[in-house]
Amino acid sequence: MGDFKLTTYEENEAITNRLLETGAKVGADAWQFRVKNQTPHCKFGEQGVCCRICSMGPCRITPKAPRGICGCDAHGIVGRNFLRFTAGGAATHSDHGREICNTLYHAKPEGPYKVKDPEKLIRIAKEWDVETEGKDIYDLAHEMAVLAMGEYGKVFGYQRWLKRAPQHTQELWEKAEIAPRAIDREVSCAMHMTHMGNTSKPEALVRQALRSGMSDGWGGSMAGTEFSDVLFGTPKPIDTEANLGVMVAENVNIVVHGHDPSLSEMICEYADDPEMIAYAKSMGAKGITVSGVCCTSNEVAMRRGIPMAGNFLQQENVVLTGACEAIVVDVQCIFPALGPLSKCFHTKFITTSPICQMPDSDFIRFEADTAAENAKSIVKAACENFKNRKPELVYIPDVKHKATVGYSVEAIVKTLDGVTNSQVDETGTTKPLLECITSGVIRGAVAMVGCNNPKVRSDLYHIELMKKLIANDIVIIASGCSAQAAAKAGLMDKAAKDLCGAGLKRVCELADIPPVLHMGSCVDISRMMILASELAKDSGLNISQLPVVGCAPEWMSEKAVSIGNYVVATGIDTFLGVDPYVSGSDQVAGWLTEGVRDWVEAAYTVELDLEKLGDMMIERIEEKRAAIGI
Amino acid sequence: MGDFKLTTYEENEAITNRLLETGAKVGADAWQFRVKNQTPHCKFGEQGVCCRICSMGPCRITPKAPRGICGCDAHGIVGRNFLRFTAGGAATHSDHGREICNTLYHAKPEGPYKVKDPEKLIRIAKEWDVETEGKDIYDLAHEMAVLAMGEYGKVFGYQRWLKRAPQHTQELWEKAEIAPRAIDREVSCAMHMTHMGNTSKPEALVRQALRSGMSDGWGGSMAGTEFSDVLFGTPKPIDTEANLGVMVAENVNIVVHGHDPSLSEMICEYADDPEMIAYAKSMGAKGITVSGVCCTSNEVAMRRGIPMAGNFLQQENVVLTGACEAIVVDVQCIFPALGPLSKCFHTKFITTSPICQMPDSDFIRFEADTAAENAKSIVKAACENFKNRKPELVYIPDVKHKATVGYSVEAIVKTLDGVTNSQVDETGTTKPLLECITSGVIRGAVAMVGCNNPKVRSDLYHIELMKKLIANDIVIIASGCSAQAAAKAGLMDKAAKDLCGAGLKRVCELADIPPVLHMGSCVDISRMMILASELAKDSGLNISQLPVVGCAPEWMSEKAVSIGNYVVATGIDTFLGVDPYVSGSDQVAGWLTEGVRDWVEAAYTVELDLEKLGDMMIERIEEKRAAIGI
Repeated sequence: MGDFKLTTYEENEAITNRLLETGAKVGADAWQFRVKNQTPHCKFGEQGVCCRICSMGPCRITPKAPRGICGCDAHGIVGRNFLRFTAGGAATHSDHGREICNTLYHAKPEGPYKVKDPEKLIRIAKEWDVETEGKDIYDLAHEMAVLAMGEYGKVFGYQRWLKRAPQHTQELWEKAEIAPRAIDREVSCAMHMTHMGNTSKPEALVRQALRSGMSDGWGGSMAGTEFSDVLFGTPKPIDTEANLGVMVAENVNIVVHGHDPSLSEMICEYADDPEMIAYAKSMGAKGITVSGVCCTSNEVAMRRGIPMAGNFLQQENVVLTGACEAIVVDVQCIFPALGPLSKCFHTKFITTSPICQMPDSDFIRFEADTAAENAKSIVKAACENFKNRKPELVYIPDVKHKATVGYSVEAIVKTLDGVTNSQVDETGTTKPLLECITSGVIRGAVAMVGCNNPKVRSDLYHIELMKKLIANDIVIIASGCSAQAAAKAGLMDKAAKDLCGAGLKRVCELADIPPVLHMGSCVDISRMMILASELAKDSGLNISQLPVVGCAPEWMSEKAVSIGNYVVATGIDTFLGVDPYVSGSDQVAGWLTEGVRDWVEAAYTVELDLEKLGDMMIERIEEKRAAIGI
Repeated sequence: MGDFKLTTYEENEAITNRLLETGAKVGADAWQFRVKNQTPHCKFGEQGVCCRICSMGPCRITPKAPRGICGCDAHGIVGRNFLRFTAGGAATHSDHGREICNTLYHAKPEGPYKVKDPEKLIRIAKEWDVETEGKDIYDLAHEMAVLAMGEYGKVFGYQRWLKRAPQHTQELWEKAEIAPRAIDREVSCAMHMTHMGNTSKPEALVRQALRSGMSDGWGGSMAGTEFSDVLFGTPKPIDTEANLGVMVAENVNIVVHGHDPSLSEMICEYADDPEMIAYAKSMGAKGITVSGVCCTSNEVAMRRGIPMAGNFLQQENVVLTGACEAIVVDVQCIFPALGPLSKCFHTKFITTSPICQMPDSDFIRFEADTAAENAKSIVKAACENFKNRKPELVYIPDVKHKATVGYSVEAIVKTLDGVTNSQVDETGTTKPLLECITSGVIRGAVAMVGCNNPKVRSDLYHIELMKKLIANDIVIIASGCSAQAAAKAGLMDKAAKDLCGAGLKRVCELADIPPVLHMGSCVDISRMMILASELAKDSGLNISQLPVVGCAPEWMSEKAVSIGNYVVATGIDTFLGVDPYVSGSDQVAGWLTEGVRDWVEAAYTVELDLEKLGDMMIERIEEKRAAIGI
């Protein structure tokens, strides 16, 4: 096995405990304490049987009160809540995508936003039947941006990206009436269906939940991913580091947090500016270190090798190091707790988006057309804050791991081309991977995604499941906080091949990849849908026949449910390690875990036990292999 | 005072009790019992301090747990819940409007959907700078329908209807950043802002709640109203009747319930068809009676004089008569209870919209292009069901009132023209009404709107407030369930002038109007915004200076909050008789009841005491009079 060693869960927990000691000195609150205050949770809410959709209530379903005032039963209430939960997630992801399209609309040859991957832009334009010949690339970019923003509200038709799926999948979607129309319309439709006095039939609510999720994964998220690539470059393998130790004590530390690369790209750009570095030095620092938290970290890690300080449940830890001059956030998954926490330290908590406005923050409104000056003023503010550090509070734990990230679909195909005998084999396909799967060298693939959640010891499920799966020759593609968990632990270090079964280890060596492939942020799960589609097309199988499953073992946000819905709707069985709020209705739970299979050939499995969860995924993969006779 | 007598609250309650006796015989449930089972309500929910927006929780704010797991405090949680509540309402109203636009898109000279008010269509087209000259009216209709549907998702710009408001109001909206962009986008934006880890600043949440409401009242609802008029005719005064006694024992009784006139218009059309009447007779009935519940009833009452059986909290009563062959519903405010209740009787519960699918119903999918055959099959099914009636269960209470309804803005202006000396005065304006107000003959106007809610004895607040206000020479414009409460009680009988103060009584006599003017359904509150705008323009005052207030004393749905928000945002003080779920945050409550006044010159008042509520409105009107020196 060599000398390679993962950072253990216990080591990470010990570091957190040490940081909480600093917090105690300055009277800082932390999620660990708030969880205690908020436990036990309301059972009605956990089961999904509480309804606050009109002001006659709130109503709660009990054996003695089996219906709300309007007569809605548990199934209707749970189903409505589930649909709204999905709609919240789909709206959120998709609005992120819209913001990227808006950035593209503002791209200019002189910057700050440029088209870094013109080939990809042209490729998408052709896919959309847009004339590209002889067109200035920025004119094309603006034309495509308007078309893409139009997908959010077009009056007729389905999402353009659907055509990327195999024909069979497209037919399933149309038949099940889950092919998404305009993205925002699906959100409004979901809100309308769940308004007082509308749909209470679980089947119909679950159906719209799938359609709403589809408008995310095959709509807004895909736009977010694809046009981020156009703007900032399509990721390719790049080395970086992960875990809190990436922060540098003698430097100005700027932590970017959130999701939208429009902000973080600019921060990185200007943190690299010699003028800014000189400015940092004039303030007594040796330089500037940008590191990231959550998905905006994934974005800049994949494209720039910017190190990843941590994932969702470590966002307070970066402040607790006492060495964070500024935590700069855009949208989503930002703890409001960062406001009061930053006040216990010298840290500036800088909010930038009208979508995410928080008390106790400095609001610097970040706009596409003033991005350069906005970013500059943020970097400057961080530099100026270096002198306010309290040295006695500084503790940056000495923990980090190497990680190779940046496995976009394009990068995976290119990696596969590298192991292809170009004399005899077709290049530019997923066929080498399919051959590994068919031969059994790799048994299958798991898409590991999603957040952290205090209901699970954080990162534990991500890491233990990945270890088990790769040991069983199952390759992992990962995104979001799951990817960061892997990187922090060391699973994206190529040396982690030593933890794999013999087959996967051989593939890692041959292709020079880690066993856990970083595919990006949470919107980038759309990349996984494209990969699955390509695998299906290249193999002649339906997506649902591939030995591939999805897993969100520590999911937390509405976005995760929206994701789950489109992953399932794409034909990929999806495993959850945290209960969604649907246990109060066997009908809704039944639709999600079994019923939807009749529409989309896949369904959810919820399993809270770590061991069982891993075993079930392996079993499912083996079942799928057996079913296609490999 | 003459012989005129209102139907009292007690009389209506006695009738309900009699009907519940029938219910008891067949084991029927009813909201009265469910309210008992659901009381007391959850205090966390009532105060708005329960958060289920991510799966780390649910979290609840208490003195010992002042923040949720993410660190969000009560203000952020209450604000988010309030914004989502609004978004639910705005999406719902607006989607109704979209459906009307879709119906317009399917209008054909040969029907079943025709353009009944081509002048209005041309007027709107000109307002929207659409060429009308020499264009076939149906081509124009389809062009306008596509444009109108485009308002839900356009990439750039604000809602077209905003230009109808006075310049001053438009400037306030722009300055406060509450001018709504694409309608669906505002819903998605609201969902995104309230997603885990986004906005927790009350001011920003309340601001988007106003903008979201604006996208309803000055967007989707206005489209719903205006294009309903184009399709089905702009309402003008027409006589009808109201209360359960409008059902006819010897006839096939079809009750239309919901909101979208696309369905109810067709049902009325075919219920009048000699072939259908003959069919009813062949089934042993003497004919067919269509009556309505909720807003779809308002729609067909205003345009066809179809009688109103009842409002929201009477929907079960129509089934309890034992004489309802079919209750045919489209969308919104439909009790899921109607499913099991109809099974206790012979009543067919027919759902028709994919938006509103319910268990225990017959689903006949109603589509614009098959509307005629859908409607026919529904009417036939009702006729065939006549024979299944159980005579021993039939009891139609002998209670109804005359009502004159149909006061669109156009009809009000026309009525005012009738009292104008056309030799010297301008016609086609609101000036005669302004003169009455200026002279003090009428002290002001109250827009009475909204639902019923078991938290208030149903209809009591509507009726008592109206009685008090008209006795104080304040004219009422009413819509929705409030209008139906008035009609049932007799306040839309022209004889109700006897209950007015001397000034208003004189005006009622002169103009030949009842003191409570029926302006339509809940989407038609957009009519009130247009009227207020016209009054402001004709008087040279700002809307906020007019002695006009809004009141939703028994509101229940998310739509009502969306409405409240756009009414306030339009500059009209709005009074609520039911607490919204915001008492858990003095900051959010403060923004709504005071803070927003700095942006839009109006705010909310919440007052649960009936007497005080009326006194406060009168006081506010008198303050406004004093402020402009009248």
